[in-house]
Amino acid sequence: MLDSEWFTEQLPGAESAFSLKIKAKLHAEQSEFQHLEIYETEGFGNLMVIDGCTMVSTRDNFFYHEMMSHTPLFTHPDPKRVWIIGGGDCGTLREVLKHPGVEKAVQIDIDERVTRLAEIYFPELCESNNDPRAELKFIDGIKWVKDAVPNSVDIIIVDSTDPVGPAEGLFSAAFYRDCFKALSPNGFVVQQSESALLHLKLIGEMRDAMSNAGLSHLQTFFFPQCIYPSGWWSGTIASKVALAGFREQDCANKAFDTEFYNVDMHKAALAQPEFFKKAMAKK
Amino acid sequence: MLDSEWFTEQLPGAESAFSLKIKAKLHAEQSEFQHLEIYETEGFGNLMVIDGCTMVSTRDNFFYHEMMSHTPLFTHPDPKRVWIIGGGDCGTLREVLKHPGVEKAVQIDIDERVTRLAEIYFPELCESNNDPRAELKFIDGIKWVKDAVPNSVDIIIVDSTDPVGPAEGLFSAAFYRDCFKALSPNGFVVQQSESALLHLKLIGEMRDAMSNAGLSHLQTFFFPQCIYPSGWWSGTIASKVALAGFREQDCANKAFDTEFYNVDMHKAALAQPEFFKKAMAKK
Repeated sequence: MLDSEWFTEQLPGAESAFSLKIKAKLHAEQSEFQHLEIYETEGFGNLMVIDGCTMVSTRDNFFYHEMMSHTPLFTHPDPKRVWIIGGGDCGTLREVLKHPGVEKAVQIDIDERVTRLAEIYFPELCESNNDPRAELKFIDGIKWVKDAVPNSVDIIIVDSTDPVGPAEGLFSAAFYRDCFKALSPNGFVVQQSESALLHLKLIGEMRDAMSNAGLSHLQTFFFPQCIYPSGWWSGTIASKVALAGFREQDCANKAFDTEFYNVDMHKAALAQPEFFKKAMAKK
Repeated sequence: MLDSEWFTEQLPGAESAFSLKIKAKLHAEQSEFQHLEIYETEGFGNLMVIDGCTMVSTRDNFFYHEMMSHTPLFTHPDPKRVWIIGGGDCGTLREVLKHPGVEKAVQIDIDERVTRLAEIYFPELCESNNDPRAELKFIDGIKWVKDAVPNSVDIIIVDSTDPVGPAEGLFSAAFYRDCFKALSPNGFVVQQSESALLHLKLIGEMRDAMSNAGLSHLQTFFFPQCIYPSGWWSGTIASKVALAGFREQDCANKAFDTEFYNVDMHKAALAQPEFFKKAMAKK
């Protein structure tokens, strides 16, 4: 049994739970959109929690942020314009801006408070927020994409919370259709897509919605993420046209450091577990 | 906060904890060696706990058992004689015996009660225990290896608990030296090697011990394992001689089903995360 010195996230359905021991609760507030909490933990640095779900920790956010940015950016032949829908902690933005070819990166998170708290409690994730190529917007990402000029973006990274609450619409065919229109001919969406062990049905439905919206070339990739349910997370690239592998040579010669990602990890992430292949083939 | 309807494992050092909601406690006993518990959980089937640590669940044991057996067996050019040190739940034994070339698989677990409980609560893992090629011994695996005839085994799978208590000696140079003597010229040890996120120092020390024992060709591989700390686990192959990849064609043509493992997952598991490569290169 765990006492009040622990923060615990129970997976919806209450099958499993993950806990971190806390030194101190640093902050809590109800923003216009969500309940936000910040903890200092014993072993994982600072922790941001949104609506009861662990979002980002100092210690292990590198898995998610690197995989959700470098995997898509080295997959696209020449990404210049990148949008991040959600991503208010700014960690994905920081990784995207490590790519010198990116001319413009727009982060669109509905909740400005997430970013303001990240600036205080995760300053390292926000270190590129003043890059002249960065633009931070605090508006509804669904509406932003709906209203976008066609052919105005190369990669849309959906760095969202779980598909309940504000993020629910980000997993819908309507949203992916709007993405399709906004994307350039070689463009694609990359969506954080939960755990293949725990959310297989949801991933199947999301992939169907993507296909139905014309984003029919799908690649789900896998990576560890300790603080998320099951410790094993995924992203899914959904593109208009078939993609010819990834820019392996550029990746091998990248001029920035990473903690997890590299050429071999990129390839490894794309390997499809047997049960996942079978489940998706059945559909 | 979690009440008594949950089983919780706190990671040593108490940084994090993982919990499963329980329907019923099915069994508990103090064996000669360890405290054994069996739970029926809400979402993961049955759960075996040894000395407070989750060992095996019905739902997710396939990750560990497949990766700890098929990865080494398809790496060896022609494995005929396999020992499993530990592995009392018999899941690794079942996977090993799926390989038709295996002539003899000996499981050596110090604690017979683990197997007797697995027979009752995890019968599917024990379905090959009566295979004529299988032999189950309930003796000290360290002594078994020490007393072995030289050149009498092709692969030693160390399917142990954490390196505290009965399993501590399984991570020592003395044990690996005894393995070296028992192994055939192309032979190797494969050791479950904890989490690269949480136990990096231990993995480094284990690899040093292997090298010092003459098992100097090392390959650490990575896979998800939801119920183990961090959800991300590893195994390490330590061989006398350099190994020439793996039997990819045999793997592609394997005559048995798997849930996680396949050719692509084998290759993927061998990819080395950037931080791991750097940490091991420094040593």
